[in-house]
Parts: sequence; structure tokens; C-alpha cells
Amino acid sequence: MSIPEPLIRLTRGVPPPESFPIAQLSECAAAVLAKHGDQVLQYGPSRGFPVLRDIIAQETGIDDSQIILGQGSLQLLDLCARMLIRPGEVAYVEQPSYDRTLTTLRRAGAQVVGFPLQDDGPDVAVLENRLKDGERPSLFYLIPDFQNPSGTVLSRQKRRRVAELAQEYGFWIIEDIPYRKLRYRGEDLPTLRDLVPDRVIQMSSYSKLISPGLRVGYAVAPEPLADEIAKMAEDTYINPSFLNQAIVAEFIQRDWLAPQIAQLKALYEPRLDAMLQALEAHLADLAAWRRPDGGFFVGMTLNTDIRAEELLENGREANLALTDGRGFFADGQGDRFVRLPFCALTPEEIEEGIFRLAGVVQRSIADS
Amino acid sequence: MSIPEPLIRLTRGVPPPESFPIAQLSECAAAVLAKHGDQVLQYGPSRGFPVLRDIIAQETGIDDSQIILGQGSLQLLDLCARMLIRPGEVAYVEQPSYDRTLTTLRRAGAQVVGFPLQDDGPDVAVLENRLKDGERPSLFYLIPDFQNPSGTVLSRQKRRRVAELAQEYGFWIIEDIPYRKLRYRGEDLPTLRDLVPDRVIQMSSYSKLISPGLRVGYAVAPEPLADEIAKMAEDTYINPSFLNQAIVAEFIQRDWLAPQIAQLKALYEPRLDAMLQALEAHLADLAAWRRPDGGFFVGMTLNTDIRAEELLENGREANLALTDGRGFFADGQGDRFVRLPFCALTPEEIEEGIFRLAGVVQRSIADS
Repeated sequence: MSIPEPLIRLTRGVPPPESFPIAQLSECAAAVLAKHGDQVLQYGPSRGFPVLRDIIAQETGIDDSQIILGQGSLQLLDLCARMLIRPGEVAYVEQPSYDRTLTTLRRAGAQVVGFPLQDDGPDVAVLENRLKDGERPSLFYLIPDFQNPSGTVLSRQKRRRVAELAQEYGFWIIEDIPYRKLRYRGEDLPTLRDLVPDRVIQMSSYSKLISPGLRVGYAVAPEPLADEIAKMAEDTYINPSFLNQAIVAEFIQRDWLAPQIAQLKALYEPRLDAMLQALEAHLADLAAWRRPDGGFFVGMTLNTDIRAEELLENGREANLALTDGRGFFADGQGDRFVRLPFCALTPEEIEEGIFRLAGVVQRSIADS
Repeated sequence: MSIPEPLIRLTRGVPPPESFPIAQLSECAAAVLAKHGDQVLQYGPSRGFPVLRDIIAQETGIDDSQIILGQGSLQLLDLCARMLIRPGEVAYVEQPSYDRTLTTLRRAGAQVVGFPLQDDGPDVAVLENRLKDGERPSLFYLIPDFQNPSGTVLSRQKRRRVAELAQEYGFWIIEDIPYRKLRYRGEDLPTLRDLVPDRVIQMSSYSKLISPGLRVGYAVAPEPLADEIAKMAEDTYINPSFLNQAIVAEFIQRDWLAPQIAQLKALYEPRLDAMLQALEAHLADLAAWRRPDGGFFVGMTLNTDIRAEELLENGREANLALTDGRGFFADGQGDRFVRLPFCALTPEEIEEGIFRLAGVVQRSIADS
């Protein structure tokens, strides 16, 4: 059997290079070095470059003392995990969830418990039962908008319930919303922070909106937790790179972010549609999947038991790179889960990739 | 009594803004975005931007697989501390040492033991005795060249002895050398890594040579430790900002680093001389101090017992900002220690500052 060409990577949950506004960022870099050179090249406060913190404060209506800019938001999640989790404590996540978060929480000593995702978010009845039974988690990490890896959006009703339970049982919610502004259709729901600000650490970043390589993420946290994160950040890396944050601030001040996001939506929505159409065409009998209105991912669950190794190996033979679904599952069960990122592939690559995937799944079922 | 003007900060261990090559960095930023835009704006390998790793590899004769670029070297120290120290284990430092390192080691669970610095480095006889008595530290953190905060240079003989003991007793040396290239006179000594590469994690950065705000630091570590640091870095912040690292690489490739360092030396050496002369003129009867040939700091120890609070308070009354010496001492003893950074002050400010300091010391002795 000849190997189909080219390699198609259904692994890449990253923005495509054609989305990077290189020329604009170059202008911004020159402008901020001219305007703020002394400041961005020096040590500075660990909360980050003040101009960008002001911009976020104005956009969100939050006091800038509550905004901590970091070197990507994962970095800030790591600081929060180290602060909030004592070894042996329980941390809740959605299941599946972002694989790096599972690693970060476990490294902080957490016993990670995953709540299986339904169409509208985790099963809150199960959540409530565990809490009523006396379990006391340090925190619940959620990605309410276009979840990584599944594409799920947490429903309005479940947002309210999770917020109430956090209040009632006194755990922190870490609300990670890097994809929220990439909604291609439909309406935004309130954030968890909108509902219960005193119990929420909200994280986001410019990685999916401008560039991941700039490593500009942020956390919004109530006082005094924000102070503690800032102190922990200072003791860990003194301060994040102000140059990168100043470039992002300049980009926003020039009113380039809204058109940039509009371009991303115009680029990504047809890719989402191509993914959903290809799945319908080739995998309707074999799997079920989310139909998100935004974000980077469609999460798919196969109807039949299958071994992940088999699937990955058959993928390689079809020149198709797949991510091991088990990495997203706190309990290690995830053999039947396939994350399908669509933003970094053309509609043609998506159609070809999903066509190949259907064959790979059929072979894997036959082999199992 | 009228307050002397202006405020003089003997607290600022930072490069002065006039040392930042702003226009050159702006050119470099434009060049790297034009040449490597797709790469520096994307996610990438956690070891850092390959071009800069190659440059360091060639300069040091080390395989680039052993070079990990981080967001400042403190960040990498934090990763190493988390990897190498199990809670309750002993970590050795010089006493005094860099205050942020003490925090980082303790946060990783270390019991930190400081070895009092002599003119030529820590007392190796005491070190040897503790090891012979059976103490087994995870690591020994040293700043062998123009130590922060004391200015001490570790002698050739003691370098050899520390290296031998690390080999014999199997502990890691963390050798932090951010000031090494700022030698204003005299000759370099071999690094600890030169002497015992398999036992040394060497750290340095471009913070003191180009700009701290770029947050470009690095660690050199033997395999397989380098792999483990890279994995830990990936799980913590995915990758450091490649833009900043690419800017530094471009700066070096344009042959701008050597003239930049020459300019820094021309700026800083007269400031060091001004510091040493002012101390001789005003504090000869009250204190002893190092006479370093490079770096950022002269460390001074008062002859008389004094309370640090008294000294700081009297400093404030003389409009003189001083750093609390106790922060540099693992055992909290440091009331009589004063760190004197000289790079960010003009010779005139140094003369005036040390003149005021002499009065502050005399008042503090009288008050005690």
C-alpha cells in the first residue's frame, strides 16, 4: 500500500503562521522601543507592563491591581497550582481537559478528579454529590468556552450551578478562556467570573488572538490572591518580558486587535465547517462529536472500544498524525477520544485528513 | 535638619537605562521578525530559539543539547530547585548570597545552609567537615565571579576544592555567572563547569550585558539533566519567548555584543573606582569591604554591631535607600552587611551616597 501524501497533522492545536500579523508587530516593536525603551528593557513590577494591564482593566471593568500578566497563562496556572494546592488535596477538572493542566496540577501534588463532559459541560449532579459526600477540592479548573480538547461550551445553567457550588463549598474556580473571543457564530454566555468574582481566577492570553510566541497571558484574581500571585511571580522570574507585553498593548492601542480577530474568524469558520462536514460525510456511523460555534477543536468520541496505540499506529501508516486521547483524561481512559484541531489546516487538508481518519478508525476496529 | 537631596538609591542592583542599546535592539527586532517571523511568533521547543542556542554552543564548546534558554535564569533556577531538591533536603549557599535564590531554594523545601564568605570564597574546611560528618546536600549554589551581594571572586584553589568535593560527595553545583563578563581588570579564572562539567549546572544571562527586560537567561547542564529541565520547562511555560531570544541572537550575529560590553566596562569601571575611593575616604574606620575587579556590587561589613532596622531608618532620614542585609543571609544574621551596587549611580552620586552612609552608620552606632 502506498503512503498517502502529504502528512496531515491532526495534532496541531496552534494558530497557522498565515494568521500572524508580522508587519504590524514589527511596527509595534519599533514604536514601543522608541517610546518605552527605558522601561521595557529594565526590570519592572512582576504584575507586568502597566499599559497593557490598564487596557485589560478598562475592557473588563476590573481594577488593574487584580490583573497579573504572565509569560503565557500556563506559567500563571503553575504559580496558582503551587499556591493553592497542598500535596494530597483534590483538584477538579472537566474530563477530558487540557493535558498540560493535568500535569501542572499533579506536579503541585493534587489528586486530580475529572468530571465527564456532557454536551453542555460536566455532570453537575455528580459534582454536587461528591461535594455533599464531603470531598473538599482546592479548585475546579474549567475551560467554559470552546473547551480544549472537546470544543464543549458550558451552558448558562451549569455556569450558574458551578458558581453556586464554588461559593457554597469554598473552592476556587480557575476559568481558562483563551478561545472565548473566537466565537464564529452565536452569542457569548456570561463568564464564571461575571457570576462569582470572589471565587474565580480567570485566565486568558493573546496566544490565540495575536501570536503564541509572544507568550503574553494573564490572570484576573480577587485581592488578596492577586498580591500573592504577584509575589510568587516575582520570586520565580522577577518580571515577565515587558517588550512583548508592550508590543501587544501597542497593537491594541492602534485598534488592530478587532480587525485581527475578524480576520481570524474569517479564516477559521470555514475550517470549522469543513471539519463538521467531513465528519458527517465520513464518520457518521463510527463516532459522535461536538458541534462548537468557535475555538480550535472538535472533540470526537468513537462508538466502539478501541486501543489508542492501535489508532495512532494505523494513523502513522496512513500518514496522519493523531494525538493520544488518553493524555486529556484524568483517569487515563481516553482511548476512544480524538481531538481534532481545525485552525491550522486548510479545508482541503481537513477533508483529506478526516477521510483518512475514517479508514484508520475502521482498520483499528477490525484489528482490535 | 533639612533632608539632603536628591534621594540616592544604594538599593539598585540593575543596569542603568543609559546602558541599553535601544536603537540597535529596535533594528534587531525588525530584522528577526522579517527573517524568522513565522518561527518566533509560533510555539516552539522549550529549550529555546535554536540560533541563540547555537551561538552559545559555539562560544562555550558545548553541545547545544545541553543549553536551555529560559525567561531569565531565575526561572531556570526555580525549575532546577523543584527537580533536584526533595523537601527537607539540604542546599548549600555562600553566605551572604543572592536573596531570591534563598527564597527559591526554600520554596522547593530545602533546608538552606550558608557558608560564610572569606576574601576568596566560602570556608572550604568547614564545607569539608560537614560533608565528612555525613551531611549530603542536594546542591551547592555559588556565584563565583563578582558575587551578588558581596563582590567576592572564588579563588582558583577553592574552585578546585569545591569541584573535587562535588565529585566526591555527589552533589550538584549550580554556578551562576551573570557578572563574569563584566571584569574591568585582571584575568578570568576557570569556571566550575570547566573543572567538573558532569556535576555543574551553569547559569548566566544577557540581563547584565544587554537588557534585563528581555528576560533571556540560560542554563548549561549535562545530559540527561538537560532533557529533564527542558521537559519541566515545557510543562511550566510551553516555551520561552523566542522573539526576545532571536533579538539577542541577532545582536550577537551583528558583532554588537563585544563593543556593547566594552562600553559597559568603560561606564562601570569609574563607578567601581568611585565607590572604592569613597569608602576609603568615609568609612575606613567603620567597616571592611571587598575590592572586586568587576561586577555590580561591593559588599561591606560594619565593624560594630548594629541593628539593620536602625540603619535603614537612619538611611531614610538621610534620603538614602539601603537594602536590608539580612535578606542575603541564610541564617538571618546580616545586620552588619551592606550591599553597595555601583553601576546605576554616577561617580558623584556614589561619593555623595557613601558620604551620607558614613553619617548614617555613625548615628546608628550611637543609637544602638
